[in-house]
Amino acid sequence: MYALVYHGPNNKAWEEVPKPTLIDDTDAIVRVDATTICGSDLHILKGDVPAVTDGRILGHEAVGTVESVGAGVKNVKVGDRVLVSCITSCGTCRFCRESRYGQCLGGGGWILGHLIDGTQAEFVRVPFADTSTYPVPASAADEDILMLADILPTGYEIGVLNGHVKPGDVVAIVGAGPIGLSAIVGAKLFSPSHIIAIDLADSRLDAAKRFGADVTINNGREDALAKVMEFTGGLGADVAIEAVGMPATFELAASLIRPCGHIANIGVHGKPATLHLEKLWIRDVTITTGLVDTYSTPTLLRLTTGGQLDAAQFVTHQFKMNDMLAAYDTSARAADTGALKVVITP
Amino acid sequence: MYALVYHGPNNKAWEEVPKPTLIDDTDAIVRVDATTICGSDLHILKGDVPAVTDGRILGHEAVGTVESVGAGVKNVKVGDRVLVSCITSCGTCRFCRESRYGQCLGGGGWILGHLIDGTQAEFVRVPFADTSTYPVPASAADEDILMLADILPTGYEIGVLNGHVKPGDVVAIVGAGPIGLSAIVGAKLFSPSHIIAIDLADSRLDAAKRFGADVTINNGREDALAKVMEFTGGLGADVAIEAVGMPATFELAASLIRPCGHIANIGVHGKPATLHLEKLWIRDVTITTGLVDTYSTPTLLRLTTGGQLDAAQFVTHQFKMNDMLAAYDTSARAADTGALKVVITP
Amino acid sequence: MYALVYHGPNNKAWEEVPKPTLIDDTDAIVRVDATTICGSDLHILKGDVPAVTDGRILGHEAVGTVESVGAGVKNVKVGDRVLVSCITSCGTCRFCRESRYGQCLGGGGWILGHLIDGTQAEFVRVPFADTSTYPVPASAADEDILMLADILPTGYEIGVLNGHVKPGDVVAIVGAGPIGLSAIVGAKLFSPSHIIAIDLADSRLDAAKRFGADVTINNGREDALAKVMEFTGGLGADVAIEAVGMPATFELAASLIRPCGHIANIGVHGKPATLHLEKLWIRDVTITTGLVDTYSTPTLLRLTTGGQLDAAQFVTHQFKMNDMLAAYDTSARAADTGALKVVITP
Amino acid sequence: MYALVYHGPNNKAWEEVPKPTLIDDTDAIVRVDATTICGSDLHILKGDVPAVTDGRILGHEAVGTVESVGAGVKNVKVGDRVLVSCITSCGTCRFCRESRYGQCLGGGGWILGHLIDGTQAEFVRVPFADTSTYPVPASAADEDILMLADILPTGYEIGVLNGHVKPGDVVAIVGAGPIGLSAIVGAKLFSPSHIIAIDLADSRLDAAKRFGADVTINNGREDALAKVMEFTGGLGADVAIEAVGMPATFELAASLIRPCGHIANIGVHGKPATLHLEKLWIRDVTITTGLVDTYSTPTLLRLTTGGQLDAAQFVTHQFKMNDMLAAYDTSARAADTGALKVVITP
Repeated sequence: MYALVYHGPNNKAWEEVPKPTLIDDTDAIVRVDATTICGSDLHILKGDVPAVTDGRILGHEAVGTVESVGAGVKNVKVGDRVLVSCITSCGTCRFCRESRYGQCLGGGGWILGHLIDGTQAEFVRVPFADTSTYPVPASAADEDILMLADILPTGYEIGVLNGHVKPGDVVAIVGAGPIGLSAIVGAKLFSPSHIIAIDLADSRLDAAKRFGADVTINNGREDALAKVMEFTGGLGADVAIEAVGMPATFELAASLIRPCGHIANIGVHGKPATLHLEKLWIRDVTITTGLVDTYSTPTLLRLTTGGQLDAAQFVTHQFKMNDMLAAYDTSARAADTGALKVVITP
Repeated sequence: MYALVYHGPNNKAWEEVPKPTLIDDTDAIVRVDATTICGSDLHILKGDVPAVTDGRILGHEAVGTVESVGAGVKNVKVGDRVLVSCITSCGTCRFCRESRYGQCLGGGGWILGHLIDGTQAEFVRVPFADTSTYPVPASAADEDILMLADILPTGYEIGVLNGHVKPGDVVAIVGAGPIGLSAIVGAKLFSPSHIIAIDLADSRLDAAKRFGADVTINNGREDALAKVMEFTGGLGADVAIEAVGMPATFELAASLIRPCGHIANIGVHGKPATLHLEKLWIRDVTITTGLVDTYSTPTLLRLTTGGQLDAAQFVTHQFKMNDMLAAYDTSARAADTGALKVVITP
Repeated sequence: MYALVYHGPNNKAWEEVPKPTLIDDTDAIVRVDATTICGSDLHILKGDVPAVTDGRILGHEAVGTVESVGAGVKNVKVGDRVLVSCITSCGTCRFCRESRYGQCLGGGGWILGHLIDGTQAEFVRVPFADTSTYPVPASAADEDILMLADILPTGYEIGVLNGHVKPGDVVAIVGAGPIGLSAIVGAKLFSPSHIIAIDLADSRLDAAKRFGADVTINNGREDALAKVMEFTGGLGADVAIEAVGMPATFELAASLIRPCGHIANIGVHGKPATLHLEKLWIRDVTITTGLVDTYSTPTLLRLTTGGQLDAAQFVTHQFKMNDMLAAYDTSARAADTGALKVVITP
Repeated sequence: MYALVYHGPNNKAWEEVPKPTLIDDTDAIVRVDATTICGSDLHILKGDVPAVTDGRILGHEAVGTVESVGAGVKNVKVGDRVLVSCITSCGTCRFCRESRYGQCLGGGGWILGHLIDGTQAEFVRVPFADTSTYPVPASAADEDILMLADILPTGYEIGVLNGHVKPGDVVAIVGAGPIGLSAIVGAKLFSPSHIIAIDLADSRLDAAKRFGADVTINNGREDALAKVMEFTGGLGADVAIEAVGMPATFELAASLIRPCGHIANIGVHGKPATLHLEKLWIRDVTITTGLVDTYSTPTLLRLTTGGQLDAAQFVTHQFKMNDMLAAYDTSARAADTGALKVVITP
């Protein structure tokens, strides 16, 4: 089969590789009907994630059809249409038993396209298939459900739920890329009074408005802290969600929060940030970090198929698999192409 | 009357000052029967708290007897024995209505011995007396109840409750001064499996053991992170409580936490700390900060008078008011004197 | 002045009475600019609430203008436009300090039009004015804000928040009168997947649809339990809200809940119900009861003025005060008149 | 092998039966090293649980040694010493994924000694072995760990955690049999100010005192409601735990609760109770029911092996397996024999 293979920093190929086979009896082999590219795939390609080694197939998001299952797979059947989640869950370790699948100690967690071969391929081996895939409702479109493989649960769990967004809140979201936009969409489920999107790119702020932001601030041109304080009568935002992964954006999120507010970090950081405890010690703030667990996937599936959650609006581009390199190029130049999520089909 | 008056950095006096009088109709004048000295009083004297100006009477902890009340005071009566809490609450602002009295927007919060004259005096004016004092049970000793003016609710609310200590947890407490010890005492109410106390001074670690720590680590001599990881099978502590207020101790607390654990900062910080988001973004941690609200004071009063909470063990020294300067000296040289809390009576 | 005065069961009059005067120094006298009639006023008139005695002015909902205040009132000023909440809060008792104002032990709770004279009058005395009124935003219409005096916080706090409504939930609401409708409106703030309204009257079910119910069941004609089970694949509703106050409706709500679900009782009951513990003991259900606290009023004010909450749709009829008896008649014959909330102005 | 076999109401035998064999590949066969008798076994023998049919081996509590495992068992190994929990968990259904194993939809829940053969036998087949057993620490005694198969997690999860017991609370526990005593032991982990035990039998109240109750009330001789109200200044208990399973005891628990308090039902009920909504609707109470999930088992194992939880005190009698009928007789006549839990070994 063909797959997108990583060959070290700045080096990738769409090339022929062996088709995956069942290794453990809880594995499934899934034919990929739709996959996509994540910001972390671009990070990997820059060489930022040393755990990814030469020869690894990338990708951790897919909707597909089960081709074969191991003898220990109980619920997933050949022919099932499934969502392959970015998080693999062994189902038996301490953290999986507490619904914290992202912290799986039993061989799961974020492994697809990272520690084992991933989904940007014609077929993918999915370990612990019973606890790492979700049935796709018959009526749902592949490309909508694909948005639930990573970005929608990430924005919802790590941004919105960790941030305790409540009706009437002012929610400031720093970063309006796909993850920030998914936090907007998730936050709106709780009827905040205002969502403020902050970004350096007007094109992303335009997207934020389309996705439901009430106020946008270009912090390349404007003093975001001053504007949030002005907007909130000097108190600060109820919830601040960091959706970038840079020291400056985290520090901005932590500065614009009100006393007793919540700062929810979603961003993937490569460097430490400065925590201004000399200001924050007295302000009763809560800061959370997290890798998505995907425990919310059944809820998000229900909301998507019920129409409360518009997943389709994330999809800006469509590619065929043999144009995988073009899909990467479009994703990498998102500022120019306006790409949010690309959908790649066989 | 006489009072301990601040006259700028490193300059204080026990001197005659005018007796306070009622200003607002919700004030009470309280005769101080017992007061004490807090670590933050020592900070003020070093000049670290610029909001405290020359002429200010220090102190924010007292047990006393009500001498007079304004016309608007409804529940507190002349002759009542009351606990004067470190936090003053207007009772009507947004935060007071949410039980977050420490963030009072109506003229309260931490004001005694800070923005208005405090309790290290023969008499003190207590604003918003109905919502800023607590009746002292007849059977209780002044010096026990005095421990509830600040340190016990601070350790309990900002350390133990913010840290979500639960039965069976491993709780690491960085700093074994009076606040760290109050966190030990508060944590034990929730039956953790082990409390680990970490400090640079063996004398404080000895106190931690007396107060109930199961394991002590001198991080001047020992690698605290390595020892905690060894003790927890490489996972980390369930809860880490910072009770010092230095970048290094916060960073230690943040490093020894397990995935999904809670880091509760109590320390008063003067400088920023480094937050290692490059490690923590993926570990699902929760970090909290806070100024005590004292909403737990009624609970702690019940536990103290019922014998579940031993407040008396904090009291190491007794002074008369006209030996106030000696009391300060003993507190300031705690490493030598073994002082935890001094009790100062008329 | 004129007021609606209760003279024993089935006996009321719009008659001249003395204008109220300040009694306690925390009182305010408020000129009533808009008031309304509640289902509990109708209960009182039937003689169901013996605590209400001959000569009592009824009503516990108003928007008005402050005419005078006692010396102990700090924040409310003469001329302020205020919402007079159905719950009076002393601000200092144990329960008020915990934001549970409905349980006030200091002379508050539900007292207006119950234990003291109420709001269906030209003027009303409001005790504890600082903690029992809310400023009305300049831009807001009296009649919208009036809906926040009782029904909107009641449906939201006692139905929606007690019931833990979450995105994607199936919420069954038994009773589609004004309180049930306010529960619909409140539940929608949390993006449930489906709201099922159950009532005996088609006219009320029509209103439920207008207010946002997705499914309606007339349990005079249809087997509501069977229909809910069919709709939820045999599992039951995630949340059931009782908004009637009869044994049969409570028992219906308790029967249609899924394992681990929440049953939130809002209804005012006069008789005991049967609790089928022989079925429920094993199903992990949570049942809550409650009198509104109105702690959510600031949030609901923000949502109403921001347009997220449409309060105006509750208002079906307008009356002048001297047509108070006609307003009562219209409210009492709601099945015929289609009355939800009437607004009565001077 | 030999086992205790149910042959219809009031009919049981210790008789030879076929040794169990692996059926599903996730099964384990466990040699029973210690088992015990539960109150629900006695209920079954009275014919109260029709789902239990002639020929069923009873018992749902054991500590044993793994003799064989199916090919799909990943973590449990032959020779492992394991706790066999009363709750079986498939690990993949909706409720198991939410840690609500008692509500398992995948073939688990309470099945041992109920829907499939149980643990009062020389060997037992344990389905879903990886998610339904717990490793026993090397240092722990079988009979201590056996107490964690049912009563300790039941009292802790369904009584103490559902009841939200907090430091300083007054906790009233209705029923002082093994489950009520386990609620006492569990409640003490949270440092309540007082535990009040209520029962008809002085012998059980004596046991309650030994286990840590501060106050005991014999509600055959005394007015329990009046005494609790007197003890709490007329307010009522903070938490009431029902540990009997009769209408009268539930109604007592519901009557003695304070406003905003929690009523946690543990009892297995065969009949409906009367819920006095005419009193409770206004009192902001929370009522919970539940079948144990055993999600707390890892915590309780840690507390038991660490010495914070004294499991041994529940064991009053020891029997050999071939004296199983005598063990039943001793358990059934608990009032005379003082039996709490009997331990039965090969």
